[in-house]
Amino acid sequence: MANQASIEQKLKMIKRGLTEVNGEDSIRQLLEEGKSPKGYWATAPTGRPHLAYFVPLLKLADFVKAGADVTVLFCDLYAFLVNYKHSWETVGHRTTYYKHIVGAVLRTLGVPENTVHFVEGSSYELSKEFSLDNYKLSVLTDVNEVKETGSEYRNPGKLSVLFCPGLPALAEEYLNCDFQFGGEDQAGLFAFNERFLPQLGYRKRAHLMNPMVPGLQGTKMSSSVPDSKIEFLEDPESVRHKIYNSSCEDGKVSGNGLLSLLKLVVIPFNQNRLESVGAIDGDKGVFDVTSENGDVKSYTSYDDLEADFAAGKISSGHLKEATVKAVNAMLDPLRKQYEESKEWQAVDKLAYPED
Amino acid sequence: MANQASIEQKLKMIKRGLTEVNGEDSIRQLLEEGKSPKGYWATAPTGRPHLAYFVPLLKLADFVKAGADVTVLFCDLYAFLVNYKHSWETVGHRTTYYKHIVGAVLRTLGVPENTVHFVEGSSYELSKEFSLDNYKLSVLTDVNEVKETGSEYRNPGKLSVLFCPGLPALAEEYLNCDFQFGGEDQAGLFAFNERFLPQLGYRKRAHLMNPMVPGLQGTKMSSSVPDSKIEFLEDPESVRHKIYNSSCEDGKVSGNGLLSLLKLVVIPFNQNRLESVGAIDGDKGVFDVTSENGDVKSYTSYDDLEADFAAGKISSGHLKEATVKAVNAMLDPLRKQYEESKEWQAVDKLAYPED
Repeated sequence: MANQASIEQKLKMIKRGLTEVNGEDSIRQLLEEGKSPKGYWATAPTGRPHLAYFVPLLKLADFVKAGADVTVLFCDLYAFLVNYKHSWETVGHRTTYYKHIVGAVLRTLGVPENTVHFVEGSSYELSKEFSLDNYKLSVLTDVNEVKETGSEYRNPGKLSVLFCPGLPALAEEYLNCDFQFGGEDQAGLFAFNERFLPQLGYRKRAHLMNPMVPGLQGTKMSSSVPDSKIEFLEDPESVRHKIYNSSCEDGKVSGNGLLSLLKLVVIPFNQNRLESVGAIDGDKGVFDVTSENGDVKSYTSYDDLEADFAAGKISSGHLKEATVKAVNAMLDPLRKQYEESKEWQAVDKLAYPED
Repeated sequence: MANQASIEQKLKMIKRGLTEVNGEDSIRQLLEEGKSPKGYWATAPTGRPHLAYFVPLLKLADFVKAGADVTVLFCDLYAFLVNYKHSWETVGHRTTYYKHIVGAVLRTLGVPENTVHFVEGSSYELSKEFSLDNYKLSVLTDVNEVKETGSEYRNPGKLSVLFCPGLPALAEEYLNCDFQFGGEDQAGLFAFNERFLPQLGYRKRAHLMNPMVPGLQGTKMSSSVPDSKIEFLEDPESVRHKIYNSSCEDGKVSGNGLLSLLKLVVIPFNQNRLESVGAIDGDKGVFDVTSENGDVKSYTSYDDLEADFAAGKISSGHLKEATVKAVNAMLDPLRKQYEESKEWQAVDKLAYPED
């Protein structure tokens, strides 16, 4: 039996920054039994990953710190079905691309090598057992119920879209996990899983959800609004351009895309860096910014930063400049790993030939 | 190279009684090359088979006579998905039941043992290759196009129903067939196959369609109208009861369920019997009936029988009595095989526990 203080500490680390947790008791019980809870995060290899992916990947770092057994599931078949514009071969290249970028980010976050398992959905989703289970699930599911699990299923053009929800549902059983972790936008799918897995004779899993990162323009981060997001491998000048174009009005907190980025991505990233590898470049806090009086102030929490910004002690110009520096410092190690990998560069061309 | 007269004879035998043939040229070409065209008939093991099944099974006898390589595909997975009321285990028992009844009918029709292959859909439909092809097909297909392929897909309750059309489509490739044969109600599915198989890089197959048998009440033969159909294993008294209750007005040809049964089932059955094993019980024709003047007349074609009935030379009472005798003569060998098979009787209870 682990001691209670250690259990509470692990649970706190697992839940840090999450907005919703269903089934916490089952995770607590595993910890009390001295076991490692098995959890996974699913990502569909579609468009190029961007800064918002730091949020789930930082959570994976937290799970590892808490002693969980962590898997990244690359949902290649799901991506093929939900997107249906790219060939199965292209999706295969995108999966390889995603493995490169996720691996590089985890290294940047100081997650020890080989503590996170990488699994491709198609490695088990095409098996006889899984296929039959997927058909059995479809026999239980009303067409309208599928449409209600998420906005991407509401008006399915192609039939393939209706095949989608069954795959991540059964993943919980086939990965033999205790919890699945994802964005708040997965709530419909998670509810679907909680309802149908027991009907197939499988246990209901815990579901952990993190907040979504708004776009730099203050609304949704979207691939169709290029300036709303910063890709992992964007060059420093492009990063500067987008951050200077972001929504950030002096003293205004709500609808401020830049503050959201700092709160959900940059400051948690630096928090993790302090926890994992210690301070770099003599930073004392998690975010350094020049105040209006010319002093450089090291913030140790987002709340202090927001209060000073709201009080007019930091101008939007100074905040933008500090963010440019911080984001480029986050991305530099990724750019470097890309430069050093011929394999990654080669698969980039195959995965995104139109770019 | 086979001689032209023999080729035309084989083609005539293959097409006899069909209402629609798409892709006849491809079959002719195979015959000209001295090859055996490979064809199959698909049946979904749902409710108990009834007299109308004699129509496709008689066609299988014709295909064998023409030297084709013939398969019966038992669509177990399809039945599970389209019906969605019975468990996968029950569908398995129904598949076994169907194998018994189809085997018994083929023996009754004089089809030589082992000339018709029996294949279960699930034997290849759950393979990795097939599953991926099915997903690829779903990426090509609009949801609305699936709904248009047949009435059973129009208002799908469960999701599983929309997964149905892909299975028989890909069967054409996975059975490596040259033609698929089915009822006219399969026209939508056959058009679907002709359109999508080439998009997956597979060849378009020929499609042969037979007429549908109306119910004894003159409209659709339906499981929900018990008196509209006669099951293969019904007892002689029940057969008599249903035939006497059938729609058959003196002198009236249209909407006459009894005449349809004679035209599409009973007379082709006796025609085949004459071709296969010779006349039984001294019958000279294909249907014996007592005329109004008391003579027994042996008809050699349906058209003569219809003409005499329309002209009032045969009463509906005499026609019913003759039909009772003919149908019971058709079913007696099936009842006998059932009585002799403990295995068939055992699976009957498992397949239709509610009966």
